[in-house]
Amino acid sequence: MNTQLQALQRYMKSHQLDGFIIPSSDPHQSEYVSDHWKLREYFSGFTGSAGTLVVTQKEAALWTDSRYFLQVEQECHDKDIDLHKQSIPHAPEHIPWLCNLLQDNAVIGIDFRQFSKAQIDYLKQCAGPKHIQLHNKMNFADHIWPDRPSVPNAIINDHPTEYSGEPILSKLEKVQNQITNFNADYYFLSSLDEIAWLFNIRSQDVDFTPLVIAYALVGHDHTYLFCDVSRLSESVLAKFHEHDIIPKAYSTVFDVLSTLPNETTIVTDPSTLNYAVFEALKERWVFQDSVVRHLKSIKNPIEIEGEKTCMIKDGVALTQFFIWLEKLLETDTITEYEIGRELENFRKLQENYVGESFAAIVGYKANGAIIHYTAPEVGSSEVSKDGILLIDSGAQYKDGTTDITRTLWLGGDIPKAIKTAYTSVLKGYIELEQLQFPMGTTGVQIDAFARMHLWKNGLDYLHGTGHGVGSFGMVHEPEQGFATSTTTVRGRAPHLPNQFTTIEPGCYVEGEFGIRIENIVISKVVSETDFNTFLGFEPLTLCYIDTQLIDLEMLTENEIDWMNNYHNTVLNALSPYLKDSEVQWLSIKCQPISK
Amino acid sequence: MNTQLQALQRYMKSHQLDGFIIPSSDPHQSEYVSDHWKLREYFSGFTGSAGTLVVTQKEAALWTDSRYFLQVEQECHDKDIDLHKQSIPHAPEHIPWLCNLLQDNAVIGIDFRQFSKAQIDYLKQCAGPKHIQLHNKMNFADHIWPDRPSVPNAIINDHPTEYSGEPILSKLEKVQNQITNFNADYYFLSSLDEIAWLFNIRSQDVDFTPLVIAYALVGHDHTYLFCDVSRLSESVLAKFHEHDIIPKAYSTVFDVLSTLPNETTIVTDPSTLNYAVFEALKERWVFQDSVVRHLKSIKNPIEIEGEKTCMIKDGVALTQFFIWLEKLLETDTITEYEIGRELENFRKLQENYVGESFAAIVGYKANGAIIHYTAPEVGSSEVSKDGILLIDSGAQYKDGTTDITRTLWLGGDIPKAIKTAYTSVLKGYIELEQLQFPMGTTGVQIDAFARMHLWKNGLDYLHGTGHGVGSFGMVHEPEQGFATSTTTVRGRAPHLPNQFTTIEPGCYVEGEFGIRIENIVISKVVSETDFNTFLGFEPLTLCYIDTQLIDLEMLTENEIDWMNNYHNTVLNALSPYLKDSEVQWLSIKCQPISK
Repeated sequence: MNTQLQALQRYMKSHQLDGFIIPSSDPHQSEYVSDHWKLREYFSGFTGSAGTLVVTQKEAALWTDSRYFLQVEQECHDKDIDLHKQSIPHAPEHIPWLCNLLQDNAVIGIDFRQFSKAQIDYLKQCAGPKHIQLHNKMNFADHIWPDRPSVPNAIINDHPTEYSGEPILSKLEKVQNQITNFNADYYFLSSLDEIAWLFNIRSQDVDFTPLVIAYALVGHDHTYLFCDVSRLSESVLAKFHEHDIIPKAYSTVFDVLSTLPNETTIVTDPSTLNYAVFEALKERWVFQDSVVRHLKSIKNPIEIEGEKTCMIKDGVALTQFFIWLEKLLETDTITEYEIGRELENFRKLQENYVGESFAAIVGYKANGAIIHYTAPEVGSSEVSKDGILLIDSGAQYKDGTTDITRTLWLGGDIPKAIKTAYTSVLKGYIELEQLQFPMGTTGVQIDAFARMHLWKNGLDYLHGTGHGVGSFGMVHEPEQGFATSTTTVRGRAPHLPNQFTTIEPGCYVEGEFGIRIENIVISKVVSETDFNTFLGFEPLTLCYIDTQLIDLEMLTENEIDWMNNYHNTVLNALSPYLKDSEVQWLSIKCQPISK
Repeated sequence: MNTQLQALQRYMKSHQLDGFIIPSSDPHQSEYVSDHWKLREYFSGFTGSAGTLVVTQKEAALWTDSRYFLQVEQECHDKDIDLHKQSIPHAPEHIPWLCNLLQDNAVIGIDFRQFSKAQIDYLKQCAGPKHIQLHNKMNFADHIWPDRPSVPNAIINDHPTEYSGEPILSKLEKVQNQITNFNADYYFLSSLDEIAWLFNIRSQDVDFTPLVIAYALVGHDHTYLFCDVSRLSESVLAKFHEHDIIPKAYSTVFDVLSTLPNETTIVTDPSTLNYAVFEALKERWVFQDSVVRHLKSIKNPIEIEGEKTCMIKDGVALTQFFIWLEKLLETDTITEYEIGRELENFRKLQENYVGESFAAIVGYKANGAIIHYTAPEVGSSEVSKDGILLIDSGAQYKDGTTDITRTLWLGGDIPKAIKTAYTSVLKGYIELEQLQFPMGTTGVQIDAFARMHLWKNGLDYLHGTGHGVGSFGMVHEPEQGFATSTTTVRGRAPHLPNQFTTIEPGCYVEGEFGIRIENIVISKVVSETDFNTFLGFEPLTLCYIDTQLIDLEMLTENEIDWMNNYHNTVLNALSPYLKDSEVQWLSIKCQPISK
């Protein structure tokens, strides 16, 4: 029985709406959204990050991708919501489904701010033949979500140059150059992480991500930041004043855009633009892939130094946590949920710790196969000194963002299938991390190097191999990455020097186990020849990899050398920050392996 | 001094045309075109297969990709034609260039039949802001190309089931199913190799390719083939009669399409449709990737058997040719051009030989670096018992199509750079050929396995790694292949079982040498697991690979095993068809290698 859904259906009836589409997004096409915008979660009960709820007066259906199939079945099984499995994540398969279901001249309700131009174009195209109408129902939820969380209201802080590595003025100049390149008047931004980067501001408006809900309009003479002005800190206000950045109320963005002269030209990236803003731009735009997204993906020396510092802090916290966990399991058990909380407690001890960079995934045995599993506060599995445990976690520090996955064997005989899978995953990680490739190679071209050893054993994983990582920013940051197709920017974007990217192959057997090994790597120039400039990766993450699960016979000498070198690096980097007993424990975990 | 170009510019003046675009295509978007359609070659002098000539009243410019940069400079250097280097093959960079150059309201002449809908759409989009007009100048060349070759007139033969493996009726049924799937009335085809496959017909209308210039309209009740009806053989006519296939004059296609009832729906593939046909379809189309292109890419058992027979014939001819060449070079020299002719003479001795499948590339020393080099009849390099020789050649047999590249060392000390490059190319070939991957993996995902060892040594090549191969059809056949991006179907199409694909990595150093190793492989299922059906490749090509050029230290034991197994297969397969002395010679070439 789903009372939220019933309330929505009553609202639909009273407003003569035959269908309603509720995506996971906010007005900024963010991956993680503030509680205020968790409409899809509220009306469906499904807590995963990606999915679309479609409601008619009689039924409800949820579209999501393979990462969440098991989770939806668990969270929505008693809620009269049908799961529709997407083969391609984020593919808009629900739109033809809904248009097919509805009668001629039916009416679909949506909030225009939750949709991009491309999404509305596609919706209109599918709706056209049956003359189905779209009604913009901004704030529909205010009527039927009684305790809807308010918009965030924390202070908006300066992200100082000691962490950001580049002053606002220098960043603004690069955007202004882009305006000049297109012979335009303004550059408009609606992506929260691009705005946070450009203005060196941080707050806590979005789960796990230190962003500020805002829009920005950059011009040659004046630049507007549309946000909750009352939340700007003194130091931010002082810097803005210095650089002629004018803070304006968030909601005035539509008026300001609408009233710009007709001959104005505004450069903007359509992929992050919501449809309400698109309408306010009134065809005065030049659409371009965001230059800020691109600039931001290339880290400066201060950001790189910061990330390296964070990796030591993260590595120390993880080492101390793993020691604690191992000791606890000698005599006791602990739930997956508690493990996530304890891990955070160890990270909290580190300098400049701000929070988790995403909801930690602690998946014991079969739960490890649920790719984006979140252990529930009540009733999560009890972990004991037996079997396999996957932990994917990360942190936000003021000087950087981390993301790491390790898979551990807690005790008992290790099944051969698990050893084979784990070793294949490890070989895949090493293969891609060790690859040398021409600058500009795209993610889709090299994603499969992390899969080849799994494929050889008839195994695979149904997610991309990695994503960009922000600097005290989004843990899943565009633009580069590793993906199996070019439908996402991760597949299409060229790899360039000084980008942070995760390499995270995995292997998941439903009902049995999940394995993933993930490091953040930095891209760097490794050689320049007559043919090209060649890049390679260097791991930044500093944490031991469980060698118990390795089938040594499957490793080459090169791979064994890699493993031993990596462990040597981890041990040397972390030891100065650990107690003697901790160093001793870590030395054993990092002991060289050999055939 | 280029009189052809001057004639075109005079024609342009008299017809008030400010620009003219001459692509390499014919009305069927064919890769190889009949002599009648070699307009770009005639007016520019450039003989390569890909390129676009753009002419204004004062200047001329040619766009082509990296395969042809050196060739254009050689062939066009005295012709007042500027070379524009395309970074992406076939990218329409010439269109913005021309539209930028021309004044407002200028007029561009083109033959609509030489352009696809997408090309015209893009042209109109670029021409729009300056109100530049497009004038359709069909047959403009008739006025200014005095000795223009006539359209082909050879007999159109039946390609019997003993070679094609599937009767027309069975193939037509599959197309008719597609018509039903789309609730349509007809399926329209304009791609010559799709038509040849569907109707089991072959002729010689296109260089190197046994195709028939035709259009086809397939319906449930009647099917039309638009071609030169007088050229149809008795046996083709009899089969057509049996299956209610109605031959119609080639030029009537526009009338027949135009006069179909308004409510008709026609399924067709826009990528092969010319703009003149597109206009005749009058928006009654449903655009779909060609189902025939897809069906054709998957070979049936008779086609596979035929290809295997051809590989033995090709292997025997190549072995005999290499013996002859080695002996000749003991005492003599020979030009690159003559080598190509002699190689064909050996192939001519084989059963069912029809002709070359493309112009053989015989590139000695620095000429090997010109990727699609064609040795001129007069003045090609004199080959002696010294240095490196690249030979890329192929044949059309009635039972199959071949394509093979070998690179040989003819004598003298081998420079280390050449050994490193050759061994890296060989390792790349082996890596991709040995890969096991999920069914449906696309070409762009695995192309780089053939590059990884080159990349490691700072080397690369600027072409895709391989293409589909027809069965007594096009040597470059869509749809699967290996490419560095998804802009071509070779990058996008899924690999499926029983496809013929080349694997052909290379390495080219301008002014020094070219290396390429190419086999045709067949895809097959190698394992089925809970995760997926996995495919692998098996080499079909049977010809020794020169081991003199290998740096043994660079090979792994697995690679050495691969090499020795392959040579063992070649020797066993070809020996029954060779004289004792030939077997003895080949045994030495196939001698096992070891560290």
